Amino acid sequence: MASPKRRLQGLVAATITPMTEHGEINFSVIGQYVDYLVEEQGVKNIFVNGTTGEGLSLSISERCRVAEEWVTRGRNKLDQIVIHVGALSLKESQELAQHAAKIGADGIAVIAPFFLKPWNKDILVNFLKEVAAAAPALPFYYYHIPALTGVKIRAEELLDGIQEKIPTFQGLKFSDTDLLDFGQCVDQNRQRQFAFLFGVDEQLLSALVMGATGAVGSTYNYLGKKTNQMLEAFERKDFSSALNYQFCIQRFINFVVKLGFGVSQTKAIMTLVSGIPMGPPRLPLQKVSREFTDHVEAKLKSLDFLSFTDLKDGNLEPCS
Amino acid sequence: MASPKRRLQGLVAATITPMTEHGEINFSVIGQYVDYLVEEQGVKNIFVNGTTGEGLSLSISERCRVAEEWVTRGRNKLDQIVIHVGALSLKESQELAQHAAKIGADGIAVIAPFFLKPWNKDILVNFLKEVAAAAPALPFYYYHIPALTGVKIRAEELLDGIQEKIPTFQGLKFSDTDLLDFGQCVDQNRQRQFAFLFGVDEQLLSALVMGATGAVGSTYNYLGKKTNQMLEAFERKDFSSALNYQFCIQRFINFVVKLGFGVSQTKAIMTLVSGIPMGPPRLPLQKVSREFTDHVEAKLKSLDFLSFTDLKDGNLEPCS
Amino acid sequence: MASPKRRLQGLVAATITPMTEHGEINFSVIGQYVDYLVEEQGVKNIFVNGTTGEGLSLSISERCRVAEEWVTRGRNKLDQIVIHVGALSLKESQELAQHAAKIGADGIAVIAPFFLKPWNKDILVNFLKEVAAAAPALPFYYYHIPALTGVKIRAEELLDGIQEKIPTFQGLKFSDTDLLDFGQCVDQNRQRQFAFLFGVDEQLLSALVMGATGAVGSTYNYLGKKTNQMLEAFERKDFSSALNYQFCIQRFINFVVKLGFGVSQTKAIMTLVSGIPMGPPRLPLQKVSREFTDHVEAKLKSLDFLSFTDLKDGNLEPCS
Amino acid sequence: MASPKRRLQGLVAATITPMTEHGEINFSVIGQYVDYLVEEQGVKNIFVNGTTGEGLSLSISERCRVAEEWVTRGRNKLDQIVIHVGALSLKESQELAQHAAKIGADGIAVIAPFFLKPWNKDILVNFLKEVAAAAPALPFYYYHIPALTGVKIRAEELLDGIQEKIPTFQGLKFSDTDLLDFGQCVDQNRQRQFAFLFGVDEQLLSALVMGATGAVGSTYNYLGKKTNQMLEAFERKDFSSALNYQFCIQRFINFVVKLGFGVSQTKAIMTLVSGIPMGPPRLPLQKVSREFTDHVEAKLKSLDFLSFTDLKDGNLEPCS
Repeated sequence: MASPKRRLQGLVAATITPMTEHGEINFSVIGQYVDYLVEEQGVKNIFVNGTTGEGLSLSISERCRVAEEWVTRGRNKLDQIVIHVGALSLKESQELAQHAAKIGADGIAVIAPFFLKPWNKDILVNFLKEVAAAAPALPFYYYHIPALTGVKIRAEELLDGIQEKIPTFQGLKFSDTDLLDFGQCVDQNRQRQFAFLFGVDEQLLSALVMGATGAVGSTYNYLGKKTNQMLEAFERKDFSSALNYQFCIQRFINFVVKLGFGVSQTKAIMTLVSGIPMGPPRLPLQKVSREFTDHVEAKLKSLDFLSFTDLKDGNLEPCS
Repeated sequence: MASPKRRLQGLVAATITPMTEHGEINFSVIGQYVDYLVEEQGVKNIFVNGTTGEGLSLSISERCRVAEEWVTRGRNKLDQIVIHVGALSLKESQELAQHAAKIGADGIAVIAPFFLKPWNKDILVNFLKEVAAAAPALPFYYYHIPALTGVKIRAEELLDGIQEKIPTFQGLKFSDTDLLDFGQCVDQNRQRQFAFLFGVDEQLLSALVMGATGAVGSTYNYLGKKTNQMLEAFERKDFSSALNYQFCIQRFINFVVKLGFGVSQTKAIMTLVSGIPMGPPRLPLQKVSREFTDHVEAKLKSLDFLSFTDLKDGNLEPCS
Repeated sequence: MASPKRRLQGLVAATITPMTEHGEINFSVIGQYVDYLVEEQGVKNIFVNGTTGEGLSLSISERCRVAEEWVTRGRNKLDQIVIHVGALSLKESQELAQHAAKIGADGIAVIAPFFLKPWNKDILVNFLKEVAAAAPALPFYYYHIPALTGVKIRAEELLDGIQEKIPTFQGLKFSDTDLLDFGQCVDQNRQRQFAFLFGVDEQLLSALVMGATGAVGSTYNYLGKKTNQMLEAFERKDFSSALNYQFCIQRFINFVVKLGFGVSQTKAIMTLVSGIPMGPPRLPLQKVSREFTDHVEAKLKSLDFLSFTDLKDGNLEPCS
Repeated sequence: MASPKRRLQGLVAATITPMTEHGEINFSVIGQYVDYLVEEQGVKNIFVNGTTGEGLSLSISERCRVAEEWVTRGRNKLDQIVIHVGALSLKESQELAQHAAKIGADGIAVIAPFFLKPWNKDILVNFLKEVAAAAPALPFYYYHIPALTGVKIRAEELLDGIQEKIPTFQGLKFSDTDLLDFGQCVDQNRQRQFAFLFGVDEQLLSALVMGATGAVGSTYNYLGKKTNQMLEAFERKDFSSALNYQFCIQRFINFVVKLGFGVSQTKAIMTLVSGIPMGPPRLPLQKVSREFTDHVEAKLKSLDFLSFTDLKDGNLEPCS
């Protein structure tokens, strides 16, 4: 059985996998990366080898080594380390789950298989169950991202089956804008201590009001501090400030969305903001252009993203 | 020029078009329908001939007669009556706009054309401008519903062009769950008195927190009172109660979504709740089954949807 | 009952609606257009007010006048004139069908309604039946184009119901690349004299081999002669020549597809090839750029599209 | 450099991976499977570890062992053995390619990566090039299946780049119904000896007429003999017979499509027809119901799929 864990809450950074210019994993900067998250961004939970981490572009052995490095470097510094162990092959997913348990991770997360797709919710639950069973002592999170997987089964319709069959189930990473589905996941499970982690960073406020207990995302790598300010304003019921923070964050994300926003862009932005070299992505992604980096740098400056701590209720122009 | 208007705010019911069993418009119950909205649901604004009203299934002359009946019956009872005049044919849309002005409607709304589609935002703005110009004294609302039209141009990218070219522009009906797009519409236009009306009823709370000034939807025909209670809780910063109301409403909508939720279902539910016969829809829709009506009736009873006025902060089971 | 008709076969041009520079219908060139089709392209059947004709961008009264002009000008010159009478409003579709009968058209065609969509095949058949019944003496064609309508019901699954309920049913315009569906429509109805008209011009040869009896398309306005040569080669079992013709046509269409191919482009190309001014499209479409026209003109010249009548079996470079 | 090879042509069976009731690979029946393909179906080429073979549901080491078994058992019996080595991880794909070379396969095939997706054609070509370079002596095939990968880059637009950068390129498995794209691949490369293998079994005839040189598909496991008869009729220009064969095959596939057709169904049908136990699929797929198997068995009998060798030109009911 899973050991009792504090509920995963607050911000969880979906970690980038740093690489060298030749596309090999750059393990050497992960220690520095941990410190940056904790000290500069106030983020103490991480989600490793997910979409942002190019997890599915790595080989199985690379995924194991990356997970191990984060666990080693994060010990005594980070609160919780969740390893994404989803894969197209059930066997490989199980292998990754066992490895996560062995190295002492705090939880595993699994995406729905997305090449051959489960026909119905029972099959999907069975697949998840088989992975969870490979790490029976680790909290299990289901990673719901229908736009990427093409698996259109609503999360709310899965939860009964998941709870029945997966005793280690601890929560959901919900990466979709369907807040009826998300709301009903929360509503139907309020008695239990599940984590309802929202995964669409640019509209986190809309999920907080619907009961989100935390968030997993790529932008918390470099906007963690600012997002934490939004969380605090929300917590103290200062909605006007919370909205100001949200809009400020949206202005940046909206800017990048228009240029094209994905993992390649995230690596470049993080390099720019943190100063830690994230390197290029691996194929099938490609390094962003110098032009992109220049545009983003100018935007970051114009939004004064280093010092908007003095936002107050009613201030309509928080970032400029 | 448009006469100055109070900003359209609060709930706006997307009206159903009542029909006889033979599919002809049943004008005779519209007066009663007005009274029901005002007295029983506390809803004083309406959106006529939209998706819910089967506007595009009616002939142009029927659309004119329906609009006229609502304006006549609503006079001195309703606050604002917005007529949807969108059509695939620009000429017909202009004809409907002129008619709306002639009968004294309070505004017109237009959907993006969706068979032949505009290539880019400039063409869409031009199309909307040509319709707006046919009713130069009426407030103009853009009806954004990309999932139905297939027009993927983000609302936020349209607003500059719309404001520049359409002096009567007064706001947006935003029927989508992309709250980055919605939030940026609000954020970039906060100095102006536009109406930002959200159109995804089941997650209205998530848009209120993002700055929505009101909502247009089909469920306000029969859940208006309950939704108004949510709005009031939100207004007084009682978020816990607001969320309880939202979840309560979601439970009902979620139930219907699983059975299949569209205009046919809305007609049946409204008949059940209001007692006013809405009749069947017109082809290409079909009357719902007796089984559907029975299921819904039982659900409405189990949620005690007539008397949940005593919800308080922290009460986790508001509807039962 | 429908009067017995020769089966519609061979090429059917989906007619463009000529317009003036101000977007009004230019009736004056329709007579010339008829002569051009017959004399220069060898095309004697037309499909009026379809997608290519911007039928759904016209008002109902405009659609009637356009249909009437084609019937008047085409008398004694054209073989068959089919009027597309599909509309979102059943009543308007019926009105158009009655008008088509009154003016002496040779058939009507109807698209599936595509805003509010039929749930299942029975409802779609009922919708079509109600339109067909408004013109009980006219041959009826179902216009299948799932990519545009979003109605995913396979044609093959409709045919039994259509035949049972619509005595005037004469055939299908099949605008999709699913040749299993198309093939099974043909296979299951080979005893009857239905027209199986293919609507994806750029791969007509692939449908001929699957049993197509004809084709409806926009490119037959200006590539009718060349396509007729392909039909003749196919007819005499000279497959090598037929493929040469098909590839030659594909080279041109492929070129335009890469630039963006729709009704606006068709109007420009037809103006270029025929010399008859088709004018700009109406909003929500926009006139193509001068640059597009220049590119297309150069391509037409490089393919020598005026004189490739001497293609023979085995000649691998028919168009240059 | 790739050793010169005869062009891959005719039918290529996409092999099923036989499994035990517990979902482990059943290597023991592969020898028998080879004999069945050659002797009963007249199929002498295979495509291993593709979609049908659940290649992406296997672990890398399983994929290697499966490939090796087919090469060992197929030696001196089969003509060509192509191993699908596509994977989300470039490194793993390269590892599989090296292994294919080592065991003496006749070629490798690669699908576009489909989780993180290439932005443009150049990046996709680079990805493919990196895989191909890991097996520089093996013919390379690009496996185009946009509906499954979501990569919408047209094959025709890739070919120039592929030829320039991948010297081992030998052809295309084209699994789509866009025969403009397929036709232009053929047309633009007719001077070279590439294989243009069509992958939509149920409409192979439509691609043959467009220049296909062969076909890869799951149905050739059990409909190989019948499809070969179609190929022969086509070859001798007996189009009427070819169409009869195609329709006959379509009747069966159309029947299964309506019941839901995928890898699970293919395993059940092959077990039924060949008598060799293919076993259940692995999660995320599920074994088909007994009801499905019964329906299919009845249909196979009603079509008399064991003896329609006497079809002649003009016979309209070949299978019953």
